[in-house]
This record gives sequence, C-alpha cells and structure tokens, in this order.
Amino acid sequence: MNIQLLLTGDELMAGDVVDSNSAYIAQVLKDLGQRISRKVTVGDDMSLLVDAIVSMTHSADVLIINGGLGPTVDDLTAQALATALNQPLELNEIAHNQLQEWAAGYKISLNAANLKQAYLPASSSVIANPVGSACGFHDQLNNCHIYCTPGVPRELFKMMEEQIIPSIKHRFDVNDYAKTVRLRSFGLGESSLQQLFTNELSDWPKSVELGFRAVDNLVEIKVSTNSKSLDAANQRCVDAIQALIPEHIYGTDDDTPASVLIDILRERKLHIATAESCTGGLIASELTRVAGASAVFETGYITYSNAAKTKLVNVPEQTLAAHGAVSEAVVKAMVAGALANSGADIAVSVSGIAGPDGGSPEKPVGTVWIGWGCADNIKAARYVLPRSRRAFQNITATIALDLLRRELLGLSTEHCHFRDFNFSR
Amino acid sequence: MNIQLLLTGDELMAGDVVDSNSAYIAQVLKDLGQRISRKVTVGDDMSLLVDAIVSMTHSADVLIINGGLGPTVDDLTAQALATALNQPLELNEIAHNQLQEWAAGYKISLNAANLKQAYLPASSSVIANPVGSACGFHDQLNNCHIYCTPGVPRELFKMMEEQIIPSIKHRFDVNDYAKTVRLRSFGLGESSLQQLFTNELSDWPKSVELGFRAVDNLVEIKVSTNSKSLDAANQRCVDAIQALIPEHIYGTDDDTPASVLIDILRERKLHIATAESCTGGLIASELTRVAGASAVFETGYITYSNAAKTKLVNVPEQTLAAHGAVSEAVVKAMVAGALANSGADIAVSVSGIAGPDGGSPEKPVGTVWIGWGCADNIKAARYVLPRSRRAFQNITATIALDLLRRELLGLSTEHCHFRDFNFSR
Repeated sequence: MNIQLLLTGDELMAGDVVDSNSAYIAQVLKDLGQRISRKVTVGDDMSLLVDAIVSMTHSADVLIINGGLGPTVDDLTAQALATALNQPLELNEIAHNQLQEWAAGYKISLNAANLKQAYLPASSSVIANPVGSACGFHDQLNNCHIYCTPGVPRELFKMMEEQIIPSIKHRFDVNDYAKTVRLRSFGLGESSLQQLFTNELSDWPKSVELGFRAVDNLVEIKVSTNSKSLDAANQRCVDAIQALIPEHIYGTDDDTPASVLIDILRERKLHIATAESCTGGLIASELTRVAGASAVFETGYITYSNAAKTKLVNVPEQTLAAHGAVSEAVVKAMVAGALANSGADIAVSVSGIAGPDGGSPEKPVGTVWIGWGCADNIKAARYVLPRSRRAFQNITATIALDLLRRELLGLSTEHCHFRDFNFSR
Repeated sequence: MNIQLLLTGDELMAGDVVDSNSAYIAQVLKDLGQRISRKVTVGDDMSLLVDAIVSMTHSADVLIINGGLGPTVDDLTAQALATALNQPLELNEIAHNQLQEWAAGYKISLNAANLKQAYLPASSSVIANPVGSACGFHDQLNNCHIYCTPGVPRELFKMMEEQIIPSIKHRFDVNDYAKTVRLRSFGLGESSLQQLFTNELSDWPKSVELGFRAVDNLVEIKVSTNSKSLDAANQRCVDAIQALIPEHIYGTDDDTPASVLIDILRERKLHIATAESCTGGLIASELTRVAGASAVFETGYITYSNAAKTKLVNVPEQTLAAHGAVSEAVVKAMVAGALANSGADIAVSVSGIAGPDGGSPEKPVGTVWIGWGCADNIKAARYVLPRSRRAFQNITATIALDLLRRELLGLSTEHCHFRDFNFSR
C-alpha cells in the first residue's frame, strides 16, 4: 500500500511551527505495519494545493491531507479538493448538524466563518470531529482514498485513532503485524557500528530491517520485521548484535545510562554519591531525572573551586598544589572524600577543562579526569574530548555513568570502549 | 525566486524524529526576504529521491536537499543526485582532503564508510563542512541550483550561514536588508503575550512583523522589518514591548536565564551557592553551562535526602520533622546553611515533589518551595507545577534562576509574574 501525506499551512512553511503531526501520523501507521512513502508540505496556496492533490493521487493508494480545515480565509483544503475533483462545494447537512451541535455545546452561535466549515465537495463523506469544529472528510480521486484531517493535534489524534485507522484497515485488509526491537548502545559511533556490522554480520537476512538513530552520544539500533513468520529471524539478529557488542548495549527502548545505573544500584541496595567539578551537577541531575532515584542517591557535591574540593570532599591542598585540579590524584581523592562524607557505597568524580578558556599545552581544553569506585577500589581515567563546552559536559557525564555501569557489571572500563569519543589520550 | 526543500531520511518518515531543520531553513530564508514554496520529504529510497529531484528542479530556482550525506548505506543523496544528473560518482579530491583533515583533527583513520562521503557527482562542487565529516555540494539541473546539506543540525546551520545563504544572495542578487530584534522573555506564555499585545499595542504598524517562538518555558519575541526606512518603526515597537513587560524581558538573542544571572553576579562581584533537592543539581548545571561561571560559582549542595539536608546545609532535624522536607522553613534553612558553609553572598534552594509518586492531598505532586536570598534577607515562595517529572524539574530551575535575577535587579518576586506556569497556590 502506498500512503502519502500532504500538509498545508503557511506557518509550517515560515518555520514558525515545527511539524509534529506528521511524526504522529507515521507512528500510528507504523503500528499498522505501514509507512508513509512521501510527504509534501505547501503553504496556503490554492494552485500548489490542487497540483499536489492531483499529482499525489496518481501514485498513492491513500492520501492523508492535514490542515486547512479551519474557519479562516486561508483554510483552503475543501475548496482545493473540490477543484481537484472538478466538483462544486455544497453545504453538507451532516457537517452542518455537527457544527450546530458543537456551537450549542459552547453556547455560541455560528458565524459565517464557522459555517464555511460545513461546505464540502459534493461527493465527500464526513468524518466526525468529536473534539472540535473542523469536521474531516473522505473522498476518492484516481483510485486513491483521500482523508482530510484538521491541523489541531488533539483533533487529528482523535480522528486518526477512532475513524481513519479503522477505515484504512477495513478498506485495505491490512496485515498490521510489526515487531521492532530497539537496543540502546553507547561507546561506538554510527559509522563504527555500521562498519562493524557490515564486516561481522555479513549473513544478515534481507527480510530483517536494520536501522540506526544517533541521539546525543547514544545510538539506538533498531531491528524490525513485519511478519509473525520472521519472529525467529528477528530474534537471531538481535542475539547476533548482543553477542557482537555485549558491553556496548546498555539497555532497550527508553532506558538511559542513568536509569540503567539506578536499576543496578537498586537491585544491589547500593547508594551512590557524586562529586563534580566541570560537569557542575549534570551527572547528579541525570540521575535525579529518573523516578525513584531517591532509593539510591542522597548526596551530591558540586566542587567547582579548589577550596570547595578541599572543604566538601577533603581533597588535601597539597594534592591540588602538586598535581593541579585536573589530575588523577585529585579525582581519586574526590571519590574517597565523597564516600567518606556521604556514607555512600560507590562514588564518581569529575574534574576537567570545559573551556573555552583554561587550557594549556599539557592539559588542553577538553581534558577531563573521571574517578569512580568503592573505598577499597578507586579507579580513574583521563579523556580528551575537545568540543563545545555543552557537548563536553554532556559526553563527560555519559562516559561517567557508563563507567559506573561497567564497573558494577564487572565489564572492562578501558579507554578503547569509548574510542569514538576519546580522540586523544 | 522559487525555493523548494527536499528532506530525506527514514527516521523522518517513521516518525522517530520531528523535523526541526526545515523550520530553521525557513527562518534563515525569511531573514533574506524569501520563503519556501514547497517541501517534500521522502525516506531513504533511491527511486523516490531521484524522482523528487528531477520533478522539483523543473519548477524551482533553488532546491535545498537536507540529509542523506552520512557514511552509512542508507545515505543516498550523492548517488541520487548523480543519477538525476546522469553522471557517475567520482572521488572528489577536495572532499577527500577535507575528510582527511577532519579525521586527522580527531586522530582517527578513515574507514571505508567514511570514505564513501568523498564520492560526489562528477560536476558537483564541494561546500565545506567545518564542523563534521559530511561535506555538502552544489550542482545545477534544469536551471535550478541544488545545494546538498547534512542532516546534523549544527553542521547544517554552519553551512547555511557561512556558505549557502551568501551563495544564494550572490547568485540571485537578493535584497537582504533585514532588521530583527529578538527579545527573550519568561513568565508569560505565548497566548498570554499575544492577547496582551493585541489589547495594549493596538497601533502596531503593518510594516513591522511580530513573531513568537516558545522554547521550553521561554518565549522569544521577534520584531522584524525588511527596509532601512523602517528602522525607526522597528525600534519604536521594541521600545513599546519593553515598556509593556519590562520585568519579563530578561535578555536578547542567545541570553539564557543562567547567563543573565551570571552577568549580574560578575558585575557586582558576588558569589552564589546552590542547595538542591528535587532539581538534583540542575540549577548548578545550568549555571556551569555558562563559560566563566567559575568567577561567581564555587559550591553546590545536592541534598536529596533529609539526612543530607541536615549534614550538608545544617537543616535542623526538628525543622524537617515539624514541617516536612517540602516546606518554607526547610528551604529557608537550606539557604542559610548554604550561605554559612560556602561563604557565598547569595544562595538558592529548592525542595519539592517531582513525582510521579510521593504526593499527598496537602502537598500534591508538582508542589515545590523555592528559597533564595542573602543572610539578612531570606525569602521563599511556593509553586504548584503539575507536569511530567522532567518538565517539573526544568520549570522549577528556570523559575529559581529568574527569582534570583529579579531579586538582584530589585524587581518584584511575586507569584503573579509566573501565573502562566503556576497553576494553583
């Protein structure tokens, strides 16, 4: 089935509004095992709209039109569809009744602008709008089913869910089986993953779709199939990925490095403390984004100055003087101090040069030491992560959270696992 | 000039990602007095891409293609353009050199996937990418100028700004006089601002364009004109807005609530300390996002448990027992303790119920107390901000930062200034 989407609205073309309706429509169609093949967006311009309707109905089985159903003069969808169909607009009695009911519910009387919404192409049938004044409508052109929907998100959602999706399923006898496994990975970039899979998973079956999506520094790996008979093949591919890069897969679906770490800590009844310099509270903030963080996190120290490092987490002044704040000795002392002062079982610390100033040839901007561990086993590692201040803070926090996960799971915490982020050592 | 936009990417069609690049492109073209007439989005499908390129170049003077320049097999833009041009892909020496320089900068060696990015249509010329590996390229077909750009936003932004916009200006001799003033506001929502301006600024001149853009909880107010003769009218409109809501305008352009606060503190040589419970380090993290924060910020306490509130910022156990952690007495004690222990001049504290659990009829989820002030003048206010955990933390941090700005500037810190966010008291 070929499904296409036509969006209309000057606000979409002007960049005043980010289009989120089409992402929603794609999602509900995906649940049906279907995808949108083409999406066209035009402003409120009659000839562009008519052209788009005519040309899209030549290749599509289903055309969903979104927007342009409102009461104002720049809402042109009904007129454009009527022109494409070579039909007049007529007062549709069902639409008129619905509009009157809507107005009665709000205790207002219909004005001319409202009434315009009841004029539809003569052959169209109404799609009820239970939550707004703009009714939708359905028609056919060039063997294509056309569904006209409102631009207001909650009106669109209701109409798609209650009427249009059931209508498409009914008309096209849709197989709506879809299986998607989403693995969340960290430590390898998109191109490294692609290269690795090409080299190592060369017998990947054609019937299993593989996709990558990088968000911030994490890469989501999607493995999808669309038939129950492919369930086993799908699972074999997921297993092959897990076997290839077990330590890089930190979770599935909506897991974050922080949520996964909190799950591990909760299960083991361990408490964590943070001592942050250059990340300024970001690691703790990520942890406390997770509901239920209070079971494992009580105390965080933000020690942005040397004095604060000494006062809050007992870093000896002579250690700071001898090694500088960005050093192995200091982040290890920060971990020890955070553990001692908070009573936590495990702690993490960071000290680095976020920039844009403050670098030196020996410790360039982007240099960071991360310390982590328990009282009897404190480790530290140095990374050089040259990038914008904000990006530096983000990647540092994510590496720190992943090091803790690796430590607790008994996985390697060597540099090489972050090689795509750690550009020099 | 007819400008069209072709976006490519399965993630855009699948609804995994909301397209924000096209809004950006529309904005920068608007600053040039131009608009996009049509926008087509297709997945990573060779024949759809080639069809779209050929058909769009028949009506467009400029076609901007966004996405599909990456290293993976589903990045098809170069091959699709080559097919449309009826040309082979060739290793482009300039692109190859840039790729090698990029790799050298990160001390990595180019793999086959990376190298694919240097193969371009034979007649294309390179558009340099100073911030990433995917170089852009320009070509012509059917008298249409085609610009191929990367999907990664910061790479796109840089390329548009530094090369493509100047190239369009040069090729089409565009009148690009544009004056845009961007005021950054907080405390009133978009529709409240719109209503207020409609009522109070009723003599707004037609020649001055007014725009709103809400990002998170902040609203950017844009005042634009496109002729030198309108400079004075533009300034009168900006002045009228400033006079109408002076306390809500916290800055201009890229100012953030944190950057503005740090500027004020630096100027007055004041130090700030933070004591956070439900925001878990987010306020400190926002402050340390700003380069130069170390001049005013040394110490932050994250006191997620009652015990940490007592230990780190001296909140008496009996105060916690008598009033509960989410109370005026506790946030005031947190401010006092943070000031005493850190030696800072001003401090801020928060304690609230981020949810989803932990609420009660008296203190529902979303309840938060914010404390702030200097040793001899500690204030506190209660807000009820029912929303998702993440959104609750974000708005709480922003209100806290804005309360500090208001306090330091001698402005009112009453509830009513946040009425669009504070739903019950």
